[in-house]
Amino acid sequence: MKQKDGSVSRRDFIKTTGAAAALAGIASAGLLAGARKAEAAPLPEKWDEELDVAVFGTGFAGLAAAIEAHKAGAKTAVFEKMKLLGGNSAINGGVMAAAGSEWQKKAGTKDSPELLLQDMLKAGLHLNHVDLAKIVAEQSAPVADWLVKDLGVEFLDTPIMMGGHSVPRSLVIKGVSGFGVVKKELDKLKELGVPIRKETFLTRLHQDESGRVVGVQVREGYKFPDAESGQIKNIKVKKGVVVATGGFSRDLMLRSMQDPRLDEEVDSTNHPGATGEALCYMLDCGAAPVQLSWIQLGPWASPDEKGFGLAPHFATQAFIHGLLVDPKTGKRIINELGDRKVRADAILKTEHPCVIFAREEVFYNAQGVSLDKIVEKGVAKKFATLEELAAAYEIPVDALKEEVAKYNKFMAAGVDEDFGKPFMPEVKPLEQGPFAACRLWPKVHHTMGGALINKDAQVLDLYSKPIPGLYAAGEVTGGIHGACRLGSVAVSECLIFGRIAGQQAAKA
Amino acid sequence: MKQKDGSVSRRDFIKTTGAAAALAGIASAGLLAGARKAEAAPLPEKWDEELDVAVFGTGFAGLAAAIEAHKAGAKTAVFEKMKLLGGNSAINGGVMAAAGSEWQKKAGTKDSPELLLQDMLKAGLHLNHVDLAKIVAEQSAPVADWLVKDLGVEFLDTPIMMGGHSVPRSLVIKGVSGFGVVKKELDKLKELGVPIRKETFLTRLHQDESGRVVGVQVREGYKFPDAESGQIKNIKVKKGVVVATGGFSRDLMLRSMQDPRLDEEVDSTNHPGATGEALCYMLDCGAAPVQLSWIQLGPWASPDEKGFGLAPHFATQAFIHGLLVDPKTGKRIINELGDRKVRADAILKTEHPCVIFAREEVFYNAQGVSLDKIVEKGVAKKFATLEELAAAYEIPVDALKEEVAKYNKFMAAGVDEDFGKPFMPEVKPLEQGPFAACRLWPKVHHTMGGALINKDAQVLDLYSKPIPGLYAAGEVTGGIHGACRLGSVAVSECLIFGRIAGQQAAKA
Repeated sequence: MKQKDGSVSRRDFIKTTGAAAALAGIASAGLLAGARKAEAAPLPEKWDEELDVAVFGTGFAGLAAAIEAHKAGAKTAVFEKMKLLGGNSAINGGVMAAAGSEWQKKAGTKDSPELLLQDMLKAGLHLNHVDLAKIVAEQSAPVADWLVKDLGVEFLDTPIMMGGHSVPRSLVIKGVSGFGVVKKELDKLKELGVPIRKETFLTRLHQDESGRVVGVQVREGYKFPDAESGQIKNIKVKKGVVVATGGFSRDLMLRSMQDPRLDEEVDSTNHPGATGEALCYMLDCGAAPVQLSWIQLGPWASPDEKGFGLAPHFATQAFIHGLLVDPKTGKRIINELGDRKVRADAILKTEHPCVIFAREEVFYNAQGVSLDKIVEKGVAKKFATLEELAAAYEIPVDALKEEVAKYNKFMAAGVDEDFGKPFMPEVKPLEQGPFAACRLWPKVHHTMGGALINKDAQVLDLYSKPIPGLYAAGEVTGGIHGACRLGSVAVSECLIFGRIAGQQAAKA
Repeated sequence: MKQKDGSVSRRDFIKTTGAAAALAGIASAGLLAGARKAEAAPLPEKWDEELDVAVFGTGFAGLAAAIEAHKAGAKTAVFEKMKLLGGNSAINGGVMAAAGSEWQKKAGTKDSPELLLQDMLKAGLHLNHVDLAKIVAEQSAPVADWLVKDLGVEFLDTPIMMGGHSVPRSLVIKGVSGFGVVKKELDKLKELGVPIRKETFLTRLHQDESGRVVGVQVREGYKFPDAESGQIKNIKVKKGVVVATGGFSRDLMLRSMQDPRLDEEVDSTNHPGATGEALCYMLDCGAAPVQLSWIQLGPWASPDEKGFGLAPHFATQAFIHGLLVDPKTGKRIINELGDRKVRADAILKTEHPCVIFAREEVFYNAQGVSLDKIVEKGVAKKFATLEELAAAYEIPVDALKEEVAKYNKFMAAGVDEDFGKPFMPEVKPLEQGPFAACRLWPKVHHTMGGALINKDAQVLDLYSKPIPGLYAAGEVTGGIHGACRLGSVAVSECLIFGRIAGQQAAKA
C-alpha cells in the first residue's frame, strides 16, 4: 500500500510484495527477494524549481560532492542551513590522514593503505564496515593529491604522528585548520558556477511511489535556530539528493538517547548546527541506522574554554612529546598516542581533568597556532620548572619527578614499558624546562554512527537495498570507523565519499 | 500530510505541525513542541476481529503482559509466530536475578536494589537508561515473589553467584530452565481463558491518522520460515499492541549491519525465530532505535554443540569453582566471574577456544543438568588428573600446574592477585582430581539494543514522544542494559516490563 506523500514504508513493502517471505528469508538465508512496489502517490502539485543534484551540507563532503556532480554534467546546487559555511569542517583541526603519500616518501616513512586499514580496524574494535573503510584507506593518498592538483590546497612538508596511527601519516593543512580545504572547495565551486545557498534548511525528503527520493522541501531564508523562519519551497531533484549534513554531537536528545551519559552537562567541540534532523529524515525514508550509540569524545579538549577551542592544537603536539598525568597521583594514565576512545576513557575514569605537558619548545613546531595565543586564552600555561608546574596543578611533586625520570629512561631505551607509547625520532627527554601545560577533559566530538551506505554512497534500507535517489557522505553516515574514529581520518573519509556521492548521484 | 495507510511519518509530522521549529528546538533546548496531526487515512475497510490488547511473543515478557492485561479487564490474545511457544525464554538457562530477596535473607546474603543497579551500570559501561534499569533493580525481588505466589513457580533454596554480580542473587528456577516460568505463565493464561494463537505472524502495525497504532495485520497458519504461508487477517486493537517478540540474534542481516563481525560463521544460542521483523515495524512507525550495535556474545558457549546447548550449565558452575585457561599457554585469561563482555572478549582475543575446568564434584551442585549428560553429548570431558586434562587439550602441563598452584594460593589468601575474582565461601582448592572440563567459544546471545521505551513501556519516537497504542517489553527494547547485560537480569527485566506493558496497554 502506498503512502499519500509518495513514500513506501517498510510495512507497505511487506504487504505489497509479499515480503514476509523476504523477511523469513533474512532469518534463514540473509537474502531478500522482491522489490518495492506501490501505487502512485501525490507529490507537491507544483515544484518551485528543478535540479539534477541537490547537496545538503557545506563541509568537506558536501562541497566535494558538488564539485564532482557538476563536473559530471549535473545541474547542481549546495544548501547550508547555517549562516556560516563549512560546518565542523571549517573549524576542524586541519590534519588529514594519507597512507603511502608522496609526503611520507619524502620523509622516509614507510606506509600503506593496508596499514591504515589495520589501524582503523584496531581502533574501531573491528566493528568497522570493512568494505567502506578499505575505500577510505586506499583513496586517502590519491585524495590528498587531488586536493593539491585540482584545488590548490597546501600542506606542510612533514606528515605528523596522530594517536592510534602506526606511523606519521597525517598531513597538516596550511593554516592548521580544515578551513584551508573548505576555502579551496568553495573557490572551486565559485569558479565552476555552482550556487551555494546558505540559510536554507532541509525540512523534508520527498519519495515517489517507487520509494525513490525525487525532491526536497526546504525553508529558504532560515535563521537558525528559528524554525518558523524562512519560506517553504519544493525542489524537484532529478538525479540524486546528497545528504552531507554532518553528525549529531550537538543534538542533545538524539545523542543522549544513544548514550545517556552525554547530557546537557557535557560540552561538545562541534558547531551549534551539528544536529540530527537530516539523519532522522533518512531514517524515516527507511534508511538503516548503524552504530548510533558509538559517540566519540575528544580526549584533547580543555575544560578551560568552550567548544573545540585551542587545546586540541596544543595537545596534539603534547601527546607526541610529553606526558599526560593524573594530578592527584602525578602518574601517567595512558599511552599518550593511544586511540581517542582509550585516552578519553582513561581521563574520564580519573573523574577530574588531567594535565598534559611537554617542553615549551615543541609547541613552535608544526601546529601553526602559537603557544602564546593559547596561553593568552587561558588554556595553556608556561612554567620554568617541573616544581612550578606541579605547584600550579597541585600535583605531588616527587611523584611527578619520579614519573618524568622513568619516562626519560624509557625514551632512552626506546621502549615505554608502562604503556607502550611509540617514541618518534624527534622526541627529546623531558629533563629541562621551560614547560607548557594544559588541563584536559573530554567533549563530544564525533558521532561514528549514522545512516548505512554502500560503496557508491547510496543510502541503504534495513534490508540492505539502496533507497533510489538518496546518497550520503561524511559524518551523517555510519559504520566506517566502527567503535572509534582515528584522528585525521574523517577529513579523508568526507572528501572521498563526498566525491563518490557526487559522481554517483550525477550518474543516477 | 497523511499517509494512505494511516501512519504518520516523521516528515509528515514536520510538514503538518511546522515541527521544523520543534527540530530546531531540539538543537537548542532538547525540547519538542507540537503534536502529531494528519488527515483521515484509510485503514483496512473491514476488521476481521477486535481485541483490546494484542500481545506478540510468548516469552517471559509477552506472557506476563497478557496475564496483566487480562487481569485489568482487557479482552486479550497472545500471538506466536513459531510452532513452539516460549521463544528464547523456554530454552533460557533458568536463573533470575532478585536483589534483596527472601532467599538471600535466608542464605545470609546482604543485597539491595541499589547494589544490583550499580552492577548493571558497571557492566553496562554506564550506557544504561538509568530510569529503566532502576525499575528492573527495584522490582527484581517483588517479581520473584509474584512468580511464586501468583504463578506457583518454584526456585531452588540458594541464590547463586553469576558473573558481574557483586553477590549471589540469582535464583535458580526448578528444572534449571526458563521453561519452568514459561510453563507456569501458560498455565495461568489457560486458567484465565486468554487465547494463545501460535503460528500467527505479525506482518504489519496499522497506524491511524493521529499516529496511533490501532490494529495489526497477521498471517494465521504461518509455517516458519515460509513467508507465503497462512492467511492474512486484520485485527482491530482498541487499547494497545504489546510487542514482546525478542531480540535479533538470529537475524543475520540486522546483526551484521550493526556488528560486521557477526557474519554467518558465528553461531547463536537463540532459537531460529529470533529475528528482527517486529523491531523493523516499530522503527517504521517512528520508534527510536537505541544502541542496536551492542550485541552480546555468550562467553559460556561451546564450539562442540549447536545453539545454546548444555555448556552454559557446565560453565556457570565452572566459572565459580574453576579456571579458564588459554590452552596455548596454560594461563588464566580473565576473572572467571567478570561480566559477559569482558569474558567473551578475552576468549575471542586468544583466537581459539579456551578451556574451563573445575573439580568434578562441583557439577553435582545446583545446576540441575547432570554432568554425565553433558559428557554424553560430547561437550564436557572427565579427567582423573591435571596431567590427563592437559594432554587432552594439548595444554603445556607445567604451566598449567603452576597456574593451578598459584590460584590455590590466591584462594587460601582470599585474594585473586591476578584478576580480582571474588572467592565464594563454598569454593575449595583445585588440588585433587577428578576434574571435568569443556571448551568455550562465544556465540551471539543477546541484543541489548532495540526500540526506545519509557517507564510505562510505551514505545517512544525519535523526539521521545510515545507512539500511542504501542508498547514493548523485553529484548526487543533497548537501553536498559547498556553495553552489557548481566546474566540472569533479563529474566527479571522481561517479567517486570512485560507486566507493566500489559497493565498500561489495558489502561490506554
